[in-house]
Amino acid sequence: MNTFGNIFRLTTFGESHGPAVGGVVDGMPAGIVIDMDFLQAELNRRRPGQSRLTTPRKESDTVELLSGVFEGKSTGCPIGFIVRNENQHSSDYDNLKDIFRPSHADYTYFYKYGIRDHRGGGRSSARETISRVVGGALAKMALRQLNIDIIAYTSQVGEIALEKNYQQYDFSEIEKNAVRCPDSQKSEEMAQKIEAVKAEGDTIGGVITCIIKGCPIGLGEPAFGKLHAALGAAMLSINAVKGFEYGGGFDCVKYRGSELNDIFYTNKEGNIRTHTNDSGGIQGGISNGEDIYFRVAFKPVATLLREQETVDTQGRPTIVKARGRHDACVLPRAVPIVEAMAAMTLLDAYLKNKTTRI
Amino acid sequence: MNTFGNIFRLTTFGESHGPAVGGVVDGMPAGIVIDMDFLQAELNRRRPGQSRLTTPRKESDTVELLSGVFEGKSTGCPIGFIVRNENQHSSDYDNLKDIFRPSHADYTYFYKYGIRDHRGGGRSSARETISRVVGGALAKMALRQLNIDIIAYTSQVGEIALEKNYQQYDFSEIEKNAVRCPDSQKSEEMAQKIEAVKAEGDTIGGVITCIIKGCPIGLGEPAFGKLHAALGAAMLSINAVKGFEYGGGFDCVKYRGSELNDIFYTNKEGNIRTHTNDSGGIQGGISNGEDIYFRVAFKPVATLLREQETVDTQGRPTIVKARGRHDACVLPRAVPIVEAMAAMTLLDAYLKNKTTRI
Amino acid sequence: MNTFGNIFRLTTFGESHGPAVGGVVDGMPAGIVIDMDFLQAELNRRRPGQSRLTTPRKESDTVELLSGVFEGKSTGCPIGFIVRNENQHSSDYDNLKDIFRPSHADYTYFYKYGIRDHRGGGRSSARETISRVVGGALAKMALRQLNIDIIAYTSQVGEIALEKNYQQYDFSEIEKNAVRCPDSQKSEEMAQKIEAVKAEGDTIGGVITCIIKGCPIGLGEPAFGKLHAALGAAMLSINAVKGFEYGGGFDCVKYRGSELNDIFYTNKEGNIRTHTNDSGGIQGGISNGEDIYFRVAFKPVATLLREQETVDTQGRPTIVKARGRHDACVLPRAVPIVEAMAAMTLLDAYLKNKTTRI
Amino acid sequence: MNTFGNIFRLTTFGESHGPAVGGVVDGMPAGIVIDMDFLQAELNRRRPGQSRLTTPRKESDTVELLSGVFEGKSTGCPIGFIVRNENQHSSDYDNLKDIFRPSHADYTYFYKYGIRDHRGGGRSSARETISRVVGGALAKMALRQLNIDIIAYTSQVGEIALEKNYQQYDFSEIEKNAVRCPDSQKSEEMAQKIEAVKAEGDTIGGVITCIIKGCPIGLGEPAFGKLHAALGAAMLSINAVKGFEYGGGFDCVKYRGSELNDIFYTNKEGNIRTHTNDSGGIQGGISNGEDIYFRVAFKPVATLLREQETVDTQGRPTIVKARGRHDACVLPRAVPIVEAMAAMTLLDAYLKNKTTRI
Repeated sequence: MNTFGNIFRLTTFGESHGPAVGGVVDGMPAGIVIDMDFLQAELNRRRPGQSRLTTPRKESDTVELLSGVFEGKSTGCPIGFIVRNENQHSSDYDNLKDIFRPSHADYTYFYKYGIRDHRGGGRSSARETISRVVGGALAKMALRQLNIDIIAYTSQVGEIALEKNYQQYDFSEIEKNAVRCPDSQKSEEMAQKIEAVKAEGDTIGGVITCIIKGCPIGLGEPAFGKLHAALGAAMLSINAVKGFEYGGGFDCVKYRGSELNDIFYTNKEGNIRTHTNDSGGIQGGISNGEDIYFRVAFKPVATLLREQETVDTQGRPTIVKARGRHDACVLPRAVPIVEAMAAMTLLDAYLKNKTTRI
Repeated sequence: MNTFGNIFRLTTFGESHGPAVGGVVDGMPAGIVIDMDFLQAELNRRRPGQSRLTTPRKESDTVELLSGVFEGKSTGCPIGFIVRNENQHSSDYDNLKDIFRPSHADYTYFYKYGIRDHRGGGRSSARETISRVVGGALAKMALRQLNIDIIAYTSQVGEIALEKNYQQYDFSEIEKNAVRCPDSQKSEEMAQKIEAVKAEGDTIGGVITCIIKGCPIGLGEPAFGKLHAALGAAMLSINAVKGFEYGGGFDCVKYRGSELNDIFYTNKEGNIRTHTNDSGGIQGGISNGEDIYFRVAFKPVATLLREQETVDTQGRPTIVKARGRHDACVLPRAVPIVEAMAAMTLLDAYLKNKTTRI
Repeated sequence: MNTFGNIFRLTTFGESHGPAVGGVVDGMPAGIVIDMDFLQAELNRRRPGQSRLTTPRKESDTVELLSGVFEGKSTGCPIGFIVRNENQHSSDYDNLKDIFRPSHADYTYFYKYGIRDHRGGGRSSARETISRVVGGALAKMALRQLNIDIIAYTSQVGEIALEKNYQQYDFSEIEKNAVRCPDSQKSEEMAQKIEAVKAEGDTIGGVITCIIKGCPIGLGEPAFGKLHAALGAAMLSINAVKGFEYGGGFDCVKYRGSELNDIFYTNKEGNIRTHTNDSGGIQGGISNGEDIYFRVAFKPVATLLREQETVDTQGRPTIVKARGRHDACVLPRAVPIVEAMAAMTLLDAYLKNKTTRI
Repeated sequence: MNTFGNIFRLTTFGESHGPAVGGVVDGMPAGIVIDMDFLQAELNRRRPGQSRLTTPRKESDTVELLSGVFEGKSTGCPIGFIVRNENQHSSDYDNLKDIFRPSHADYTYFYKYGIRDHRGGGRSSARETISRVVGGALAKMALRQLNIDIIAYTSQVGEIALEKNYQQYDFSEIEKNAVRCPDSQKSEEMAQKIEAVKAEGDTIGGVITCIIKGCPIGLGEPAFGKLHAALGAAMLSINAVKGFEYGGGFDCVKYRGSELNDIFYTNKEGNIRTHTNDSGGIQGGISNGEDIYFRVAFKPVATLLREQETVDTQGRPTIVKARGRHDACVLPRAVPIVEAMAAMTLLDAYLKNKTTRI
């Protein structure tokens, strides 16, 4: 299942060490201005080697759009795109050909398909997310015209967590530091933690928070198409994600209904609003016009630059130690991926909602 | 979007106060023994009025299968079914016709569709989950033949939480108490808490834990069809759910990769297994043969038997107070719903996996 | 695959001799006036026993809507419905339990599923089309508000064929005769032919022509969603259909491009039109505002009231002769089914087209 | 809608004069030997400039597979591919920028999307079918292992039609002539006809017949997934197709049920077979093990190398005359496209059928 979405749909392909990764965006609305600089800038936010914290692999990750754009605008036809793989050190993986790395997809892919491209994780590599960032950037170009904004940031690394609500941060700070955290002091703590963990050949996880501003009322569908269920599925499809919560989330458990309900009122402009927003901008699966916000938990990367016990494809015990260049913490690079998945989910829901009435 | 699943698909219909709720299961494998007693028993686990903790509404919730079964077995053709609504007190809702109840779907449905069946929440009522329990029971009948077991239980109510891992509980205890909790002492505490909250006209949420045993290796698809993403979407589509986590979940954030990786070994039978299971039985989105487990957070029910401020459809301030018979805590009745959604997700993934090779 | 459509979707269930047939319409636009008299009238057009030409089975085919309608309008939520089966003579089929009737689905269903409801053809019975007529009637209620009209008629029975183009007929004649043919003289010839064939225990096929008037420009999608491909798939899904052609159809083969191209001009109102319409109102898979028209070929019904050789489930030779009450020609009753499938296809395309731009 | 299929799915992209056409095959079974020579040979059968009858455009149409293949076998992961566009004479189309060519998609695309890539027909160009031939070739590689054979040929050009049944031809003759017709004498007549028409700047249509041999019993789904409905939708999605019929087709209308029914018998090997095969190998929408055969009608190409009246985007009358290099008859090059669509449909149905039982 390599297609995401229903009306706005992204289909991706590509392995870490094959000729290219890429995909097709089908259902892109016609007439949207295609901003190639923005598209490449989004990829650069995800690119390895962008800061002291990320893997030093050098890949330009230059995207080529192959269709669906004419004289600078989307035509409504599918947008095919590719990003050539470069600078692959496939030989770094020769020792892994017959080995199942712990907590990776090696074992399950091998068992499911009977064949496995072991180089760089093959299809299960996070390199597949390049295609998501492209799809997300295209979605953002449409959302921009609708004044819908999507902002994500790193809110926790290991035990270092932001303590304030998202409303209290200045989002323009996010891209100013390598961690993509709006709190400059916490950001520096997180960065030091990541470097310390990296020095030990170990890895660390964290939490990304995402906020959607300007979402119109009415997006999302009853029963199985609830907007938060679509967002959850989108987030859980990102590598290393272990949990998703929106609005009050798991914390809701601690409160009574009387404490948690969001009371409606009519504001000065005559719009119906809620005083609080534990609903997270979604009621009954449908957006209510308040900010949508959610949190995504990432486990520590499974690839360690230290020895681990494991077994080979024959089930024999062996030792594995990754060679090469790997992130000790994926969160800084995962921020644009979370945004991309959210953007595609929103645009898909927006388009679907247009079919509610004739 | 009232259809769930890809190969095994449930389509549901029905409002709380219409003539009936029901649905169609398409893609039910042929030749499965249809156990009508089991089907009704599953509905009874969800039914109101089953214990001191649940709403005293009396509804028999008797299901009628209308097709797809011949001489006691599934034929491979779609199974239509209905459950007639009974004992509706629609007049309990007359006062709500022009009022938006806080943290309900009243406002968003009205805005999205321009029309709203206000009686009992209409389509957004949890009565829709009857159809899910029917679909889930049918899926369980197929999974039973595959020796796949699905068990859910209430693991937290308010701040009262189970402290042990699921392995340490005797699942046969679950159905022995009204809370559906495997720890009889905690169960009693939870029950008392629910009753206390109810006495105040208030509500309370909690967490349901679900375990899938006997899942074969290989279920789930790369990229957007990851098994845990499908499970997450399924759970987040249940009314009142605010969060989902699987395996190590949000807790993973606290640990290093070296602490969290699940080390492979070969057991006496020659099978590859993992010593630990923070992966939650899923690696790279594909089941690895270990137990799958996850947790689902439910917020407190929004319907309070006490006064709340709100606005009417004209935006004018007013007071709302629910009449009628409502649950103070949905968790005991949500346990079979969680199981049902998990069962359908698993069977769908199982059938999809059959297409991996010719 | 018992679901039809993408945005407007009909899922059907039910066998000929089970408790009921029915279905769910999902994606019905909100706010459409639900005309129950029209709905039942459409079913009556399909009903057995309506004229001298159709099977004398008496079935009231009364539909019950179970959801999705509130105060006489669609709510945007799924519309579940059932039609109870009545007057089944299941014992008429006892002799067929272990026999494969020629050119029926008995053999293929048995082989595919390993189990078969032999009574009245089970799921392969044309009784399933009741659900299509319900779905089609609902779609027509929405199309009516869009001024899109769908008219079908019997244009050929055996070798008796209408000779003029559809423009030359008065469609108000169609429902005035039992054959549903707009030419009263041909209609009578057809009726006599059907009665003669029936008297011999034999059956006969024919052609239904369908015209869609008032279709807006722009419906249909490039590549695999072409409007005529969707119409073709819809028609070919009806029992006994063997062929589909639209616009110039198979006849196009005889002409040169220079003879067949539809030349554009601008009419007095300033609208771009074509002088001729061999394109059948669809160019590049997208409607161009001209009339859409197509033809559907129906083979003679396979059920004969005379003896035929065949084999039983063990492959042993035997003789089969249908008992009971059967149509000698399905075309009169298939006219509303063709319209229903066309209506659902059009509404689906209309809604999809709304997502072309933001 | 640029995706074809449900389990085996092809998504295509690309315009005639953009950088490339291509696509993604998702759902390719794992472990299939990928025969690159065969793949390119299939593309060569479709390629322009291959014979005296086709457009002299020179395009190498070299395909590059970008993913999903490892050590010569499919991995079960999506196969991305591109074919670079070459030798485009975009300036040949400068005069068409503001003109709607008769019976092309220019007008409908412009109206639907508000923007149109006018060069070479843009997305509506038959160049898109390159991607279908790639998808079809991959499907054929899997079908080959299942001993399912798909053969198509030109059976009619203008009024020159083959007179015998497909059983009476030697299929090895098909690829020996430029028309792809198994009757060498008729083939030469057809070729001369095409050349004569071409000399006049005109175009001509025809019929392609397709036969599927070795199809196992049981492929196809009840109701809306009938195998012939899927084949029909596939064929009707090919540019210039106006009609589809299978088995007895439109001709069935002339016969009685007693003449047309296919009588079952048991052959010497103990297999149930039918004496005749007017069912076309499909009963109740499900394959019965006999040969599947169908016919596809192609209209004459709309592009004429002679003057035609038309209007421009402002609705003003004008004259259009195509420049450049165009086919006078698409049938010879459409043969591999028909096969490709049939192959993908069959493999999709085969994989779907695997989910019928657990």
